[in-house]
Amino acid sequence: MIRFNCDYCEGAHQRILDKLVETNMEQTPGYGNDRFCAEAAQMIRDLCKAPEAAVHFLTGGTQANLTVIAAALRPHQGVLCSEAGHIAVHEAGAVEATGHKVLGLSAPDGKITAQQVKQAYVDHINDESYDQIVKPGLVYISQSTELGTTYSKAELEEMYRVCKECGLYLYVDGARLAYALGAEGMDVDFEVLAANCDVFYIGGTKVGALFGEAVVILNDALKTDFRYIMRQEGGLVAKGRLLGIQFSELLRDGFYIETGRRADRLADEIRKACEDRGYPFLVPNNTNQIFPVIPDAVLESWKDKYAFAYQCRVDESHSAVRFCTSWATRPEDVKALADDIRNS
Amino acid sequence: MIRFNCDYCEGAHQRILDKLVETNMEQTPGYGNDRFCAEAAQMIRDLCKAPEAAVHFLTGGTQANLTVIAAALRPHQGVLCSEAGHIAVHEAGAVEATGHKVLGLSAPDGKITAQQVKQAYVDHINDESYDQIVKPGLVYISQSTELGTTYSKAELEEMYRVCKECGLYLYVDGARLAYALGAEGMDVDFEVLAANCDVFYIGGTKVGALFGEAVVILNDALKTDFRYIMRQEGGLVAKGRLLGIQFSELLRDGFYIETGRRADRLADEIRKACEDRGYPFLVPNNTNQIFPVIPDAVLESWKDKYAFAYQCRVDESHSAVRFCTSWATRPEDVKALADDIRNS
Amino acid sequence: MIRFNCDYCEGAHQRILDKLVETNMEQTPGYGNDRFCAEAAQMIRDLCKAPEAAVHFLTGGTQANLTVIAAALRPHQGVLCSEAGHIAVHEAGAVEATGHKVLGLSAPDGKITAQQVKQAYVDHINDESYDQIVKPGLVYISQSTELGTTYSKAELEEMYRVCKECGLYLYVDGARLAYALGAEGMDVDFEVLAANCDVFYIGGTKVGALFGEAVVILNDALKTDFRYIMRQEGGLVAKGRLLGIQFSELLRDGFYIETGRRADRLADEIRKACEDRGYPFLVPNNTNQIFPVIPDAVLESWKDKYAFAYQCRVDESHSAVRFCTSWATRPEDVKALADDIRNS
Amino acid sequence: MIRFNCDYCEGAHQRILDKLVETNMEQTPGYGNDRFCAEAAQMIRDLCKAPEAAVHFLTGGTQANLTVIAAALRPHQGVLCSEAGHIAVHEAGAVEATGHKVLGLSAPDGKITAQQVKQAYVDHINDESYDQIVKPGLVYISQSTELGTTYSKAELEEMYRVCKECGLYLYVDGARLAYALGAEGMDVDFEVLAANCDVFYIGGTKVGALFGEAVVILNDALKTDFRYIMRQEGGLVAKGRLLGIQFSELLRDGFYIETGRRADRLADEIRKACEDRGYPFLVPNNTNQIFPVIPDAVLESWKDKYAFAYQCRVDESHSAVRFCTSWATRPEDVKALADDIRNS
Repeated sequence: MIRFNCDYCEGAHQRILDKLVETNMEQTPGYGNDRFCAEAAQMIRDLCKAPEAAVHFLTGGTQANLTVIAAALRPHQGVLCSEAGHIAVHEAGAVEATGHKVLGLSAPDGKITAQQVKQAYVDHINDESYDQIVKPGLVYISQSTELGTTYSKAELEEMYRVCKECGLYLYVDGARLAYALGAEGMDVDFEVLAANCDVFYIGGTKVGALFGEAVVILNDALKTDFRYIMRQEGGLVAKGRLLGIQFSELLRDGFYIETGRRADRLADEIRKACEDRGYPFLVPNNTNQIFPVIPDAVLESWKDKYAFAYQCRVDESHSAVRFCTSWATRPEDVKALADDIRNS
Repeated sequence: MIRFNCDYCEGAHQRILDKLVETNMEQTPGYGNDRFCAEAAQMIRDLCKAPEAAVHFLTGGTQANLTVIAAALRPHQGVLCSEAGHIAVHEAGAVEATGHKVLGLSAPDGKITAQQVKQAYVDHINDESYDQIVKPGLVYISQSTELGTTYSKAELEEMYRVCKECGLYLYVDGARLAYALGAEGMDVDFEVLAANCDVFYIGGTKVGALFGEAVVILNDALKTDFRYIMRQEGGLVAKGRLLGIQFSELLRDGFYIETGRRADRLADEIRKACEDRGYPFLVPNNTNQIFPVIPDAVLESWKDKYAFAYQCRVDESHSAVRFCTSWATRPEDVKALADDIRNS
Repeated sequence: MIRFNCDYCEGAHQRILDKLVETNMEQTPGYGNDRFCAEAAQMIRDLCKAPEAAVHFLTGGTQANLTVIAAALRPHQGVLCSEAGHIAVHEAGAVEATGHKVLGLSAPDGKITAQQVKQAYVDHINDESYDQIVKPGLVYISQSTELGTTYSKAELEEMYRVCKECGLYLYVDGARLAYALGAEGMDVDFEVLAANCDVFYIGGTKVGALFGEAVVILNDALKTDFRYIMRQEGGLVAKGRLLGIQFSELLRDGFYIETGRRADRLADEIRKACEDRGYPFLVPNNTNQIFPVIPDAVLESWKDKYAFAYQCRVDESHSAVRFCTSWATRPEDVKALADDIRNS
Repeated sequence: MIRFNCDYCEGAHQRILDKLVETNMEQTPGYGNDRFCAEAAQMIRDLCKAPEAAVHFLTGGTQANLTVIAAALRPHQGVLCSEAGHIAVHEAGAVEATGHKVLGLSAPDGKITAQQVKQAYVDHINDESYDQIVKPGLVYISQSTELGTTYSKAELEEMYRVCKECGLYLYVDGARLAYALGAEGMDVDFEVLAANCDVFYIGGTKVGALFGEAVVILNDALKTDFRYIMRQEGGLVAKGRLLGIQFSELLRDGFYIETGRRADRLADEIRKACEDRGYPFLVPNNTNQIFPVIPDAVLESWKDKYAFAYQCRVDESHSAVRFCTSWATRPEDVKALADDIRNS
């Protein structure tokens, strides 16, 4: 079985393991107050050209999302996001469990627009019963999105401009940030991202860390007492050093984006094979997730050879599925799949 | 600086690191649906002689506590525990954030008694306004406690008998379970513990895992849909294999309790030194935490050499502090401290 | 200004005021433990032919909804309802504030179907990631709905059958129950309703009480400790007698449904005038809310004479609005409006 | 049976009923946007000499408390109050249900001191683990307290000074404010109160309204979006006019404090009788609640004649109980009780 079903099927980059082994018996303070976390946080501030940014390390994406949102919002405020947003669908109601409504916006390609956000804001304030309706307080987008698409620099700038105009925080879920920043033609880097949102996170888990995400807070209003809320939500790691070590290794010398780029290029090979074979895509994109529409009979024939994720039924005899490449994907496995696609 | 301030200053047991390295590139399903988690869960069921137990792996202790409590209680129910209980003091209101009140009981040595629990239950049902008062729903105890003391088999049995009589769940926080089970004269093992509570967790973080706790659910009523709530609370780890691998290594061949026993014996050396020097203890105990009362001047003189935790002021010139040994403590460091205590 | 904008523009039925005045200085126990509440509860059990029903009185509809839902669900469960359901739109996130997601289903006429509920259930259990997705736990419908439509006996029976099949509670919001039960051709009465759901409430506020709703719990599983949760959510009224007195007066001798029927007949006159004039309806219905589509110029000409609610824009020059009749509507005001409609 | 068990045994002042009847069929907008609420709010601002105060009307005390606290605090913040505070004991965990911990301070007479608050603040910031411990965010006091005692002007001023110094909001629960302001020798009036806290509420329910409390927000930071949170918590009344009407009647021409004063004087007669008979008080006080310590045999002999509240056991044969006078207490009933006390 070759797994293309997600980007967290393996352990971690060898360099991370090596560093964990190397530093294993060094004694450090707990809860992120160690030299490794300090070093990683500084690397992030440098990459973002954001010397005042607050950086915190959490265990996973759902944890990061719920902690940031709980920290940012007052009780009556909700989160605008794509109807297919991770927080809207796949976090078992984590945001609601902190008391906040997720306000879904239609986004067939996974991306919401600044115009949609503006409209939601306007609709709310113009409603006669506005104060009986959840007030938008934060916009959540993913870079790349759950459908593998990305926001360009211009789109981010426009989104952030609208958010500021409407008094909304902009939060970017970067679980797959490496695969976005490494995408062909992408004009967003850490610096651009940091300049165009209030808070974002740099995904580790899906980019070859054992686990861990780095939350980067740009807006001063969101910095106060963030650690308390990490603790309250169970996201403060006792051996915080583990996260500092991993992010230092991930971010050193451009390794993070390079990791994303490599996986995106491998995904391109699968995309190319689909195109050659005439399989359309549910959503065109250029990152590490590919959503081809494939005959059910073909999918059935592959089920013992490849693991992939079922996305949705398209018609009576076709389904959209998801293939993911990752930091760990082997070129020979991609070649095998591409060949099978072409020959299907 | 030699750190005795906590039991999570280092990384992990070498055997855990070795296994992580060895299995690193094996592809597995995510979220704990992998062979390593299955293996570790089975080892736990075997150790507990509880073939029907549900086992789940979470990232940390606060995460485990809040998830178990949120899963177990209805909105109006609260948790009975020691006023010094971890959930009552050091989790930044994690239980309250899930909507539940922590009902503290006085426990100078860190242990609450079955009699206290029974009294709290009786007081509640006898109150004229009982349905305007938080209803106890679960009893939380720690084994070993925050003050290093332990519950004997008889105490656990009596506590569980009372809990069942009063319709209360009994939950045992085992962050330091190894240090309890390894204590001199302890008559509780995994089997006894599993037979005398509804749910408990086996601590990994403080016993030499990189991170992770294993929640063991004995009571069927608590098993339903537990994974949803893990997800909702941000405690479901994408690369769940990491926890399966670590617990397999920790639990194999008695290693877990042996680890605790070794640390307890090292702690005994520090205890002995305190006794020799005439330093009393805030609370007598026999696990890996030691709480001697020491002159402030002596503590001051040690501050660049040893890290330890401040517990409380005892009088104008004395404070109680905490020294911890752990899975990683070096005998030579214990000897150095013991000598310094005797010579102070 | 004649108000047709809602059904809570006036105080209360004269018979309610009379009874409040008459009993004013009688001393009673607080919190609903008085003879008036006992009497009203028994009247409700009799009307419902549900001798084991638990009856509780709360202050308002949002309070009733959030209390019932908080009492019924575990943390990971959500509520299936119409996208236009009151809890989904107009309660400022009250359900989310208790930690639960509202799962909206498309319902252009305000009614969801048993088939939709079944499908949502099936989709959930068939999803590969089902335990990372909010689990439906309760179905919320309104009788009459937010768009003035009603569920027939057959529809309720089918809905309840499906709910039981899927392990879902069925909860009926009866804020406007009188207007539903009094509707032309309605084959649902208290008994039918009580036999076909787990819990519902009888609306007082919109049917001529000063305030108050009566929650009727049929399913034993939902009865336990409900009063605690009323208290916790701030819905337990100190002078509970006020609610007992009001519901006794409302329900005596068929007055409640008669009140609804009268308002529905007055609404029919407005409906007839719209039909005569050729104004279509956003949604056809037969209760006390009417949603005609009217030229903006006509609406503008009425704005100082009538109060009505804006519903939505239909095209460049037409809007849908809502007119409500109520227990207090005067026939002469209806005649004036009907004449103005015909002459517009 | 003569009821002295609480101050909400009867309906409402006759003037309130008269006004409700008089205005019954007047049509008004809902949700407090009516002329009666505007008038009452203005009366309150005038009484408080606080022209910028925001005034909101809610249904009851628990509702007011949980709404104010939910609106004021961030997730990791808790409430400092007396261990016997209403929110700490008798609201079934309402504050915890909004996610916040109640931090109890010892207060044998029901009053906490500015010094205690300061100490709690200092202890928190000096703790090594401060960001793992709930952060105090608001101080809750009751005027009068649950034990019938009151805060003097000097005490309020000192408390507010400390709160501002420590970055804590000061919130005063005025469920029994009339009985405090009407107490013998009281130097606090509306103006003093409003000048020495961030938010308080004027109790209606216990002072002769059918129901209702008026929240008065002085601090601008607490004003934003308060109505949303009222709605979310189920505390926004559809027929808000009812609250406006009641508070206008209660507050007109000094009636509110006069009502309190009259009840306090009647309580004095009961106090005097206890003193004459030699019954000590659990807590000395001068408002409408009296807590004498009385032989159980005497209490037993009264149980069919008087209703009173059981407070606590004092010794084997004595208990402390609570007698309340109220706006509705009849002098002849007080005389009967006083005679029975003297003759017991």
